[in-house]
Order: sequence, then C-alpha cells, then structure tokens
Amino acid sequence: MYSFKNDYSEGAHPRILEALMKTNMEQTIGYGLDEYSGKAKELIQSLVGNTNANVHFLVGGTQTNQTALAAFLKPYQAAIAAETGHINVHETGAIEATGHKVVTAKTADGKLTPSLIKEVLEFHTDEHMVQPKLVYISNSTELGTVYSKDELEKLSYFCKEYDLYLYLDGARLGAALVSEKNDLTLKDIASLTDAFYIGGTKNGALFGEALVIIKEELKKDFRYMIKRHGGMFAKGRILGIQFLELFKDNLYYNLAEHADQMSMKLKEALQEKGYQFASDSYTNLQFPIMTNEEIARLEESFRFELIEKIDEDKSVIRLVTSFATTKEGVEEFIKKL
Amino acid sequence: MYSFKNDYSEGAHPRILEALMKTNMEQTIGYGLDEYSGKAKELIQSLVGNTNANVHFLVGGTQTNQTALAAFLKPYQAAIAAETGHINVHETGAIEATGHKVVTAKTADGKLTPSLIKEVLEFHTDEHMVQPKLVYISNSTELGTVYSKDELEKLSYFCKEYDLYLYLDGARLGAALVSEKNDLTLKDIASLTDAFYIGGTKNGALFGEALVIIKEELKKDFRYMIKRHGGMFAKGRILGIQFLELFKDNLYYNLAEHADQMSMKLKEALQEKGYQFASDSYTNLQFPIMTNEEIARLEESFRFELIEKIDEDKSVIRLVTSFATTKEGVEEFIKKL
Amino acid sequence: MYSFKNDYSEGAHPRILEALMKTNMEQTIGYGLDEYSGKAKELIQSLVGNTNANVHFLVGGTQTNQTALAAFLKPYQAAIAAETGHINVHETGAIEATGHKVVTAKTADGKLTPSLIKEVLEFHTDEHMVQPKLVYISNSTELGTVYSKDELEKLSYFCKEYDLYLYLDGARLGAALVSEKNDLTLKDIASLTDAFYIGGTKNGALFGEALVIIKEELKKDFRYMIKRHGGMFAKGRILGIQFLELFKDNLYYNLAEHADQMSMKLKEALQEKGYQFASDSYTNLQFPIMTNEEIARLEESFRFELIEKIDEDKSVIRLVTSFATTKEGVEEFIKKL
Amino acid sequence: MYSFKNDYSEGAHPRILEALMKTNMEQTIGYGLDEYSGKAKELIQSLVGNTNANVHFLVGGTQTNQTALAAFLKPYQAAIAAETGHINVHETGAIEATGHKVVTAKTADGKLTPSLIKEVLEFHTDEHMVQPKLVYISNSTELGTVYSKDELEKLSYFCKEYDLYLYLDGARLGAALVSEKNDLTLKDIASLTDAFYIGGTKNGALFGEALVIIKEELKKDFRYMIKRHGGMFAKGRILGIQFLELFKDNLYYNLAEHADQMSMKLKEALQEKGYQFASDSYTNLQFPIMTNEEIARLEESFRFELIEKIDEDKSVIRLVTSFATTKEGVEEFIKKL
Repeated sequence: MYSFKNDYSEGAHPRILEALMKTNMEQTIGYGLDEYSGKAKELIQSLVGNTNANVHFLVGGTQTNQTALAAFLKPYQAAIAAETGHINVHETGAIEATGHKVVTAKTADGKLTPSLIKEVLEFHTDEHMVQPKLVYISNSTELGTVYSKDELEKLSYFCKEYDLYLYLDGARLGAALVSEKNDLTLKDIASLTDAFYIGGTKNGALFGEALVIIKEELKKDFRYMIKRHGGMFAKGRILGIQFLELFKDNLYYNLAEHADQMSMKLKEALQEKGYQFASDSYTNLQFPIMTNEEIARLEESFRFELIEKIDEDKSVIRLVTSFATTKEGVEEFIKKL
Repeated sequence: MYSFKNDYSEGAHPRILEALMKTNMEQTIGYGLDEYSGKAKELIQSLVGNTNANVHFLVGGTQTNQTALAAFLKPYQAAIAAETGHINVHETGAIEATGHKVVTAKTADGKLTPSLIKEVLEFHTDEHMVQPKLVYISNSTELGTVYSKDELEKLSYFCKEYDLYLYLDGARLGAALVSEKNDLTLKDIASLTDAFYIGGTKNGALFGEALVIIKEELKKDFRYMIKRHGGMFAKGRILGIQFLELFKDNLYYNLAEHADQMSMKLKEALQEKGYQFASDSYTNLQFPIMTNEEIARLEESFRFELIEKIDEDKSVIRLVTSFATTKEGVEEFIKKL
Repeated sequence: MYSFKNDYSEGAHPRILEALMKTNMEQTIGYGLDEYSGKAKELIQSLVGNTNANVHFLVGGTQTNQTALAAFLKPYQAAIAAETGHINVHETGAIEATGHKVVTAKTADGKLTPSLIKEVLEFHTDEHMVQPKLVYISNSTELGTVYSKDELEKLSYFCKEYDLYLYLDGARLGAALVSEKNDLTLKDIASLTDAFYIGGTKNGALFGEALVIIKEELKKDFRYMIKRHGGMFAKGRILGIQFLELFKDNLYYNLAEHADQMSMKLKEALQEKGYQFASDSYTNLQFPIMTNEEIARLEESFRFELIEKIDEDKSVIRLVTSFATTKEGVEEFIKKL
Repeated sequence: MYSFKNDYSEGAHPRILEALMKTNMEQTIGYGLDEYSGKAKELIQSLVGNTNANVHFLVGGTQTNQTALAAFLKPYQAAIAAETGHINVHETGAIEATGHKVVTAKTADGKLTPSLIKEVLEFHTDEHMVQPKLVYISNSTELGTVYSKDELEKLSYFCKEYDLYLYLDGARLGAALVSEKNDLTLKDIASLTDAFYIGGTKNGALFGEALVIIKEELKKDFRYMIKRHGGMFAKGRILGIQFLELFKDNLYYNLAEHADQMSMKLKEALQEKGYQFASDSYTNLQFPIMTNEEIARLEESFRFELIEKIDEDKSVIRLVTSFATTKEGVEEFIKKL
C-alpha cells in the first residue's frame, strides 16, 4: 500500500547513509564539538550569509522548537502562533511544558500577518496577562503555503518595531524554498528572522534539524539549554555529517524539488478532475476535498491522513510527498482517482 | 591521538548500519508504531521475561531519564540518587527542569543501599519538604561498579516496603551484565525494578535507549510524555531496527564483553605498575590515580578525562573502553605507562 | 471619585476585622492546622453537605486555580476553558507556568456547554496533542452570567461520561448564588463538581478562598502542592477565622445580596435610559455599552474599567459592585447618566 | 500550654490591626498600586538608602523566594545555598518547581563563605552541569546565626568578581539586625546584595514580606512574575499599610529587640544550667541539647520543635521567641528547667 501519509515514511537519502558509513569508525569528540559538526556549522553560516550566526544541530522539530522558545522567552512571555501552528496543535504542549503560553491568531492560510499580530498585542495590555514576545511562523506552513519575501519583510519590520522576536520553523523549509511561489533565499531568511531552523528529517536526512540563531542576545549559553532538554546528542557528529552531505552539490534543494514536483503532479491531476482544495499549496502537501466514498476507495490502495470533515459527505485529506516519493506511486494514485 | 575519553567516540557497529541500509527505502508508519519497532519491543519483552512490560525507544539517556521521572513522579515528589548519580551531576538540571528535586546520599562506590535511603526518608517528614518517591540507581554506576543480585534484591524489597519506585539507569547496562563481578540477568532486573532502560548509545548502537516499564501504574499514556518532551522520533523504526539487530545473535553482550575485556586489560596493566584506583571497577571505566606529570605525558598521545584532583601532585583520570576500542590502542597505552 | 472598578477596592467587612482582633494574641499552631481552621473546615463541609470533602484555605484566586490544576492534572493533560475564562486571560499564564495548556472554546456568554466541550475532545485525538482532562468553569462567570442547575447537571453528567474533572472557580460564587437567576445551592455544586472554591476576597473577606475537593482521587497530598506553590500561609488561622465569620449568621450571602442589589439598581437605571449591554448579567458585574463621550464624562466622577471597543464611537465598560458599595455611590452614578 | 514553636503563633502587633481598621472602608486601586503601598515603598527605599530600589510586597517567604529566583535565573542556572538553607530544605521543592536546581554547601553554622562557594563553582565546569548563578543566604540563618558586615562584604565582593547574584532571605531580618552580634544596617545590606527581603510575617505583621531589588537587570517586569506565581494580592494596600506601620516609630526594630531579649534570657538561663547548644545563636532562635527525659518533661508544659537526635539519649530542640513572647512564658520555662 503506497503511502502519502507523511514525509518521513522512508529512511534517508542513500548519500546520507554512505557518509555515515564512511566515517563510522573514526574517533571524534562528542556532543557536536567534533570536526564534522564544526565544518557543517561553517557551511551553514556561509549559506545563510552570516558568519556570526550560531548553528546547533538537534534531533527533531518539537525538540528544536521547545528548546529554542524555552531559551528565548522569559517565564511570563508568550509565543504568538497561527491557530494551525505546529507548536499550538501537534507538540503535546511542549511549549507549555516549559511554562509558556502560546497565544493564537485565526488565519485561513496558516500564515501570520502584522495586523493579526497587532490584534494580539493590543489585547495583552498589562501584567495580569502574559506578555507576547516571540512570533512563531512556519515556512512552508502546516497548510503547505509559503511566505513571500514581501510578506516576511513586513513581518520582520513589524517585529523589530514592536520588539518581538521572529522565529521561523523550517521543518519543511526545503519544500518552501524550491516552491514555484517562493522568492526567498536562506540569506533572506537569516537577515529577516532572529532564529530559524532548517529541517533535515523531512527532507532526506535520517533525522536532524539545524537551528540557526541570528540575534546576538539569543545566543548565550544555548548548549546548556540543549542539554537541559535532553537534546545533547552524544555522537553529535552524526548530525554534522548529515548536514555536510545535505548541503553538498545542492542535494538539499534537489530533494525538495523532487518532493514538490511529485506534489504538483498530484495537484494538477486533482484539479483536472475538478477537485477543490482546502489550501492552495505549491509545496509538498496537498489538501484535496473528497467525498467519503472516494476517500474510502482510495484508502484501499493508499495511506494518507484524514484531516477534517467538511460536512456529512465530504472531508479534507492530506497527501504528502517527499524526496523518496516515486513517480510510479504518484501515477498509480492519479489513475485511481 | 587514540581516545579513551568515552564510549561514544565512534559511530555504530557495522551490523547496525547495514540493517539501516537494508531497510532504508521501505515505507513505514512513523513514531515507533512500525513493524520493526513492534518486533523489537516483543523481543525485549521476551528477553526481560515480561510480556506485559511496556517498551519505548528514546534517543538518549538524559532524555530517557527526564521523560521517565517526569512521568512517574507527582509534582511534589523527589528522586533519591547517589551524589555521583548522572541525574544529579551531569544532566544540567534536566530533572529539576521538570519540577522535581533530586535528593542525594553520599556514597563511596556510587551505589545506594537501603540504609542510605532510609536516612533520606527519615529526614523528609512532612509537607514542608519534598516527598522522596523514586530511587534512581545506575548499573553499571558512574564509577564503574555494579550491583550484585543480592544488593538489588535488598533495594527492591526496601522500595516495596516503603512504597518507593525503583528505577535503573542502564546507560551502561551491557558493560554491567557481562562484568566478571555481575550475577544479574535482564530478567532479574525486570523483576526487581519498576522501570529501567537498556542503553544502546554506549554499546554499539548509533544511538538509542530502550525504556522498559514494568509497574502497571507507570505505563499509562507514556507516549504523551515522550512527545511532550520532544523525544517522539519521527522515523521511529530507526530505533527499532537498531535494537532488533543489537539483540540478534548476542551482539549486545558480545560488544559489551569486548569493552570490558579491553578495560580489564588496562586495569591489570595499571595494577602491575602499582597504580592506585579511585574506584574498583570491573566494567568499561577505569579510574587510576596518577601524578600530574604522568598525566601530562599520557595526554600527548591519548585522550581521556581528568576527573578530580587528589592533591597538589596527583589526580584521578578516567579511561573508557567501548565496543570499538582496539587492542592496539590499549597496548599502546600500556606501553606508554 | 467613587469606584466601580472592582469588588476588592475596600478592606473587609467590619465583622471580619473584629474577629481577627478578638483572637489576635492567642497562640495557635501554624499552617492551617489550628482549631479555627479546623472548625471552619467542618462548617464548610456541613454547608456543602459532604463531610468527606477536603477543605483548604488559600490566599487568592490565581493561587488557588494554579495549585489545584497543577495537582489534578498529569503533565500532558490540559484544561478546557471558555475563551473568556480567568485562567485563560487574566492569570499571566499561571496554568501554563505549571506545564499545562489551556484549550479554549468560544462562547458568547462566558459559559461552557457539553457540545462546546465535545468539539474540543473530538479535535484532540492522540498523543501528538495534549489530552483535555479538566473542565474549568467560573460561576458567576467573568461576564456576570450564572449557570442554572440544569446546565450544571448536564455539564456534570457529560464530564462523568467522558472521564473529565469538573472544576468550578467560585471567585464570585456569592454573587452567583444570590442572583435572581440562580437555582443552585452550595450542596448542588458540591455534588455536581469534582472541586470548586468559595471566594472570600471578592465577597467581604480581607482575603482568602476556600477550596473544596470532592473527588477522592484528587485529595491526596494536596498540602504538599500548596506549600510547593508558595501558598502555605504561616498564620493559617487568619484564613480559618475569616471563613468562620463569613458563614456565621448568613453574612456571606447577605454581603453578596447587597452587591447584587446595587448592581441590579445600576442595570435597571441603565436599561431605562436605553443602554444596551454586552452581557445580560444578574450578578454584581454590569457591562453597558456607551459612547466614548459618555464614558469620558463619567470618568470625571467615577472609576471603572474600559473593557472593549465596539466601534469607533462606542465601547463596553464594566461596573462592579460589592459588599461595600454604597447606595449613595450608585445613586450618584445614575444621576450622572 | 505556652508555645516556643515558632514566631508566627500569634496574630499581629495591635498597631498593625488598628492601621487596617482605620483605613478599612476607603476605596483604593488594587494589586499594590494604591497610595499606601506607594508610600510604604518610598519609605523602604529611604530606609535602605536607595531611591532606585524596586520594592514589592508579597504574602509569604516561600512565595517571595520562589518568585524572585524564578525571575532572576535563566532556566539552566542554579542557586547556591547552605545545606540548611530554607529553599533547600523547607519549601517542598518550590525552587525546583520553577525548574532550578539548588546546589548546596555543607556548613556548620548555616552561613556561606567565599571559599565554600568557590568549591561549588569549580565543580561546575561546563554545559553538562547546571550553571550556579545566584548565592542564597539567610540573615539571620535557620540556625539563628548572623552575618557580620565583614562577612557580607567578602561575600559581596566575591559574587561581583564571579558574576553571581547575591540574594538575602530576610524572613528573620529584624531579629538579625538587632542582635548583639550584628554590625549591619539595612543600608549596608542594600549596598552589598542584589536583592533581599524584609520579613514581616515573623516580626509582628499579620503577614507580608517586602522584597527589595537593587540590581538594575533584575527589576524588569517583576510584577508579571508575581502574578504568574499567584502572588499578586488583590487588596494590595493591606501589605502596604502594614509595612508603613511597621517602620513607623521604629516599631519593626522594637519588636525584634523584644524577641531577641526573650531569647537571650532563655539562652542565659540554659547556659547557667550547663546546657550545650547546637548553634551559638544571639537572635530569636535557641537550639539547646537536652536529654530525652528532660524534653519529655518540658513538653508537658510547653510547645517547641524537636530538631534532631544527637544520640540515643540526647536531642536538639528549638525554642523560638517573637514580638509576642511574654516575660511570664519565658520565666515559667526557665523555672521548669
């Protein structure tokens, strides 16, 4: 049964495993202080165009978000997120676990705007309420949408004006950056946000996320926070080696391009057949609306997530493609529509 | 420069990487609900002789300790640990991060005894103090010592009598179970403790720990806790596959035996040369006492940890061997003594 | 300038201070284990019709909510509250500070219903999301509305069916119980909820809230939680003495009646003049909608809270009466309308 | 049965209650923003000789310590305390509840010294351990001892040199400042520490502690922290009024003097009778060592705490005097020796 359930159904791109294989019996220092991690950090600093950026490798997305927000916020401060934001919905309260409220804004496309944030700020007036301090966005979003450069600039200016941190969850940053709707670069993101992470797990790595901290005041003692949250990886070089490989010869972008192409193929086929979509996505997630009958039929041959009931007859499903999605899988799905 | 710094200087045993390679492009369900993880759990249940045991795979030791203790303790309850216990010293307050005090007992050999615990209980008399509820031990300990079956039984009975949970940190459980001083089995441990973990990271896995929960009341909803603490691994099968391989053909024990043998070789050579030890270890850690001069000389050719100053002239160093330690490395070290 | 800003602008009802005066130099045991606190607990047990109820006296409402919810919930569990609920808006994240998410339901009148809660439950499907476990309601609500017996019964049955705790914040319970819309008694509340508190601070005490725990499994070791959260009051008898006095000769109800009568007087006068209200309250809070001009004029002579802008011209204000509100104050306000 | 159990067995000094009585029906703004609290803050600023000091009134000692340390420390930072320190022993893990470890130093007299702190610092070397950042001392200590000006200066210089905060728990500051062994003033303390609190509860107030924050970087948004920890007192003026009265006409010092005099009377009588002491206290706590027989006999007529068994026959008891201790009570005790 072919799966469009998520972008972590397979292992890693073979080059990743080969790189691990090749270095396997070398001795290195632990906890990410090894040479490979060092080189990977330098490589990422250069890719994001900021040699002062701090780069930390962590194992997964929830861990990265939790550790970063716990480090960046004072106890009484809150994060602002879209209601659909991963930290608000799908991290089992990992942010609240560190003592911070997530305040939310309703948004149709999963993206925040200055005016949505302003409403939140205006509501929070004094010390009887939490103090919103960090804006959490994801790119691509949980709905597959992407921020344009203009949108991110406006958010960035707004956050500076209101003394807010801007944090970007890049679990699916690859898929965003190669989307046909994208006009952002890694360098843009590094210059417009205070911190962000480049997701490896969902784009060809075995696992791993690269957190990039730009703002000076957020850098201090971050390794203490990683350890405190159980995220200090003993054989840290395994993360470094993966990111070194991912960013060699454009592999990271190539893998994301494949994922997006497979997704657009699905989208176009679905559009041709007249399906509506719950979100207009140009990345590796598609949200077609189908009748329950159609869904039941497709479930006989494919795995995917059921996202939401629209009414008695119709529901939204989610189709996810990845670096590993095969043309054959996609074509078979289209045939079965 | 050969390293005796720790037991995670290398990658994984080649069989581990091969197993990952072989299954790499299969599609599986995420988050440890896949077939490989399922089989690995069953295998471990059978090895520990308890088919009702809950088995969870986590990425690292601090994460496992933090998640387990946060799940097992009520907010006002505390863990009791040896002063040298990993959770007390080397986890950057990961237990306190979840709101729990670690109360400690002084002990020369890193092991707790009923009478040490009793003293702690007698000191904590009412609601103005934390309520000690969980006894944390490590086997082998941070000093390389191991618990005998008799010692563990006495602890176990004591804990039952005083309504305490007994939790065993098995980061180096392999090294303990194959030590010449050991008379415990995995089944003994499962029947004498309420929960424990089998360490993979320090015994040949790329990474990973297998938490085994025995006591019924500690099992409920544990996966929520894993996710909340950022430890729910997306490609969970990677952990399952590793543990399946580790416990095939006795690999786990063979690797630990190699580590202990290399360590005993160092110990015997050191003893012959007349060195004293800070701890009488029969596992993969050795703590010889050396003059600062000797240490400086050895540091020119080898990497190891400096543990503690004894006086102006002498210090304790720590030598760690692992599945990957080479005979040549050990012989070279001995030659340089 | 007469104040309708809140119900804690004045000190205590004179009888409260006299009771403190009379017992002032007696020696008692600390921390609420004294005779006065003992008697007050028994009195409240008898008033709520449950001699097994646990009664704890705490200093304030946020402290009570925080301590209770932290005690009742497991780390990954969440509270469900109306979007307007005090714990969601006005406690500076005190619930999140203890690691718990507050998930909310939108409601026009500040009250929760089974169907609103059901929606929340249906959204939270697995371990990737928090587990809603406790329903938080306030009576009277932050909008001055009250739950009818029928409504509370339906909530209670629903919570039992879905294995949820029902917790009632009674910061303004007096005002609710004497409202002309009320048909609940303290005994009803004790039999329909799992825990609730009787607010003293906002109804004539100098300060103090009486938490009543009904459900057996929530009682254990609660005093540890009070101390852990800094709420164990050294001279605990001061709380006991106040509640003993409050519930002597119906004082508690009489004070609330006065507050509600003053409020209804304001309401009727405002209605006569044709004002609309943002909430249809029959307790001690009124929410008239006024033009900004009118508000500005009234602010020259009175203190009150500005709650929300309706549009460019109109806003909602909040008028609060209390045990201490004078007829003269009310009449003067009405005159100035 | 006369009680020497603690210094909060009685209510408040009558002048405190009279001051509350006199202002009782005035309307003021809530949460400590009223005029009385304002004046009390100014008065304390002037008494401590620092008009920039921030003064906050809180309800009790554990709440004050918890809120202050949670505000001052970053998540991975720890407090250093004497093993006997209140935050380490008698606050049910209230500091750990906010995520911070308390690391301790063994000390015979309850006092910390630079060399004891230095040992702690040297042990904590990197990000695998918590980062000690705040030195917690109490004056008078839990053993009744006091810091001399010279000792506090040395601590202060040391803390500045090592970039540590110095925090003084003044639950019994009155008793310390009037002790015959004292040479410190409030002004000295304000110039030598970064924050401290002046205890009201144990020196004649009904309840209340005045936290004084000296160091600029610790001041920001502190009211958010008070609210978040459930310590924002609705009728805040009740705290302000009490401190205004306490520091009028030297009342605070006079009450402490009485307490210390009663204590010294006990001490001298005990010394005359040849009793040994577990601590050489010149404040309001005395720790005589008695045979169990003697203790049993005295317990027939008096209440006091049993602190510790010395051996089979002898134990340490604690006698506490207060502003309210009567000469008759003391004389009767002496007679019964």
